[in-house]
Amino acid sequence: MNLLLLDPSEVAPDGSVSLAPAHADHVRRVLNLSAGQTVRIGVIDGAIGVGTITAISDQRVALACVFETAPPERPRVDVLLALPRPKVMRRLWAPLATLGVGQVILTNAEKVERDYFDSHVLRPEGHRPLLIEGLQQARDTHMPVVSIHKRFKVLVEDDLDALCPSSRRLVAHPGSDTRIAAALADAAPVDRVLLAIGPEGGWNDFELGLLEAHGCHRVGIGPRILTTTTACVALLTLVHEALAKSDSP
Amino acid sequence: MNLLLLDPSEVAPDGSVSLAPAHADHVRRVLNLSAGQTVRIGVIDGAIGVGTITAISDQRVALACVFETAPPERPRVDVLLALPRPKVMRRLWAPLATLGVGQVILTNAEKVERDYFDSHVLRPEGHRPLLIEGLQQARDTHMPVVSIHKRFKVLVEDDLDALCPSSRRLVAHPGSDTRIAAALADAAPVDRVLLAIGPEGGWNDFELGLLEAHGCHRVGIGPRILTTTTACVALLTLVHEALAKSDSP
Repeated sequence: MNLLLLDPSEVAPDGSVSLAPAHADHVRRVLNLSAGQTVRIGVIDGAIGVGTITAISDQRVALACVFETAPPERPRVDVLLALPRPKVMRRLWAPLATLGVGQVILTNAEKVERDYFDSHVLRPEGHRPLLIEGLQQARDTHMPVVSIHKRFKVLVEDDLDALCPSSRRLVAHPGSDTRIAAALADAAPVDRVLLAIGPEGGWNDFELGLLEAHGCHRVGIGPRILTTTTACVALLTLVHEALAKSDSP
Repeated sequence: MNLLLLDPSEVAPDGSVSLAPAHADHVRRVLNLSAGQTVRIGVIDGAIGVGTITAISDQRVALACVFETAPPERPRVDVLLALPRPKVMRRLWAPLATLGVGQVILTNAEKVERDYFDSHVLRPEGHRPLLIEGLQQARDTHMPVVSIHKRFKVLVEDDLDALCPSSRRLVAHPGSDTRIAAALADAAPVDRVLLAIGPEGGWNDFELGLLEAHGCHRVGIGPRILTTTTACVALLTLVHEALAKSDSP
């Protein structure tokens, strides 16, 4: 935990905070801090800053917080992901938030089992704590916006333009020779990227065709076949790296 | 499992194989194959090929295998990793093998607990099955060579030149502005890369200084702080991507 991420309701107008039990415990036992010392804090979807400990006891940890004026930049990558099985999805929330995504758009596909959509990890109480864990790791405050779309065709044909109005769109597909950096290099400046990642068995021809018909360019990362978790981390890393490079002078 | 990885001792001189129980079970229940159908196979540290099912029953699955002449290229990246805690290390073996590493060089550091070295996952019987799982995912046959070095200084000063004689050396360090692609771009062709990855709290100044004194160039991947697992996948992805790019015409 490299940042204590607070709910806006926890911060009083004067910047004082009485930490919730889990955060108080972290300050006492892991960070082992005492009154007068400081800790990095942030507000969900808001600014980051520094909290000075004004009172610390077994009952209570109180902070006086000072925030930077501007919140961190919102991550410029959204991910459209064919829903993996619940065990994999549960482990994926935190890394997604750590790497930085603006939206997590979950969808069906031929190779997605229908009952995956009944999983607890798709409910806000199931994934929000894991997203917070990932943001606290990365020192970010931007809570990824999660949406769930059981009908792939409706998502791509009817909803995607509203969800991602001006994104450059990529679809990862094994066997594509186009690298991500190349797909994002030779065109106008890129504002946001939508990255579509299929199920472990891949998109079927219809799904891939529909994504391409709606502006997604095929990209690949070489001949090795990765698990969903490793593929998500690898692909997001390459998109962020390409965006960082295109921003540098 | 995108490849059945066999021990060389399992393959008779005429290419016939009687599958071990776990592989036989995979062919019967997951792949659901019958006699005459084929399955991708590989031999540890050897070639890949195709096995045709010659007999299949509850007791036995037999294959007739034909191998390609040349084995796949050995991964050109070695990783030097400050030993993470056992739970993290256990989950890291398979992704390391999937992404492709020639060697896994595990070492001590100030922020590594000494008792991590007693973990079962450092013994061959603890990690070899996980490496095989990762290779079978990636369709590779090259078993990463694992070595364990409890004394960091001895490793870097006395052993590293023998372990990695002609590698370009990188050390990942939060806050470095040099991107991996840049560190590998503007010099002679790169044969192999050694990538050093520190503990979650980072290398200390002595450790970082010693690595730099022995040829490691600092590289970074931006301001976000990643967990060891995510950092390893992200960093290895970027090194492989840079090598793939430097190879392309």
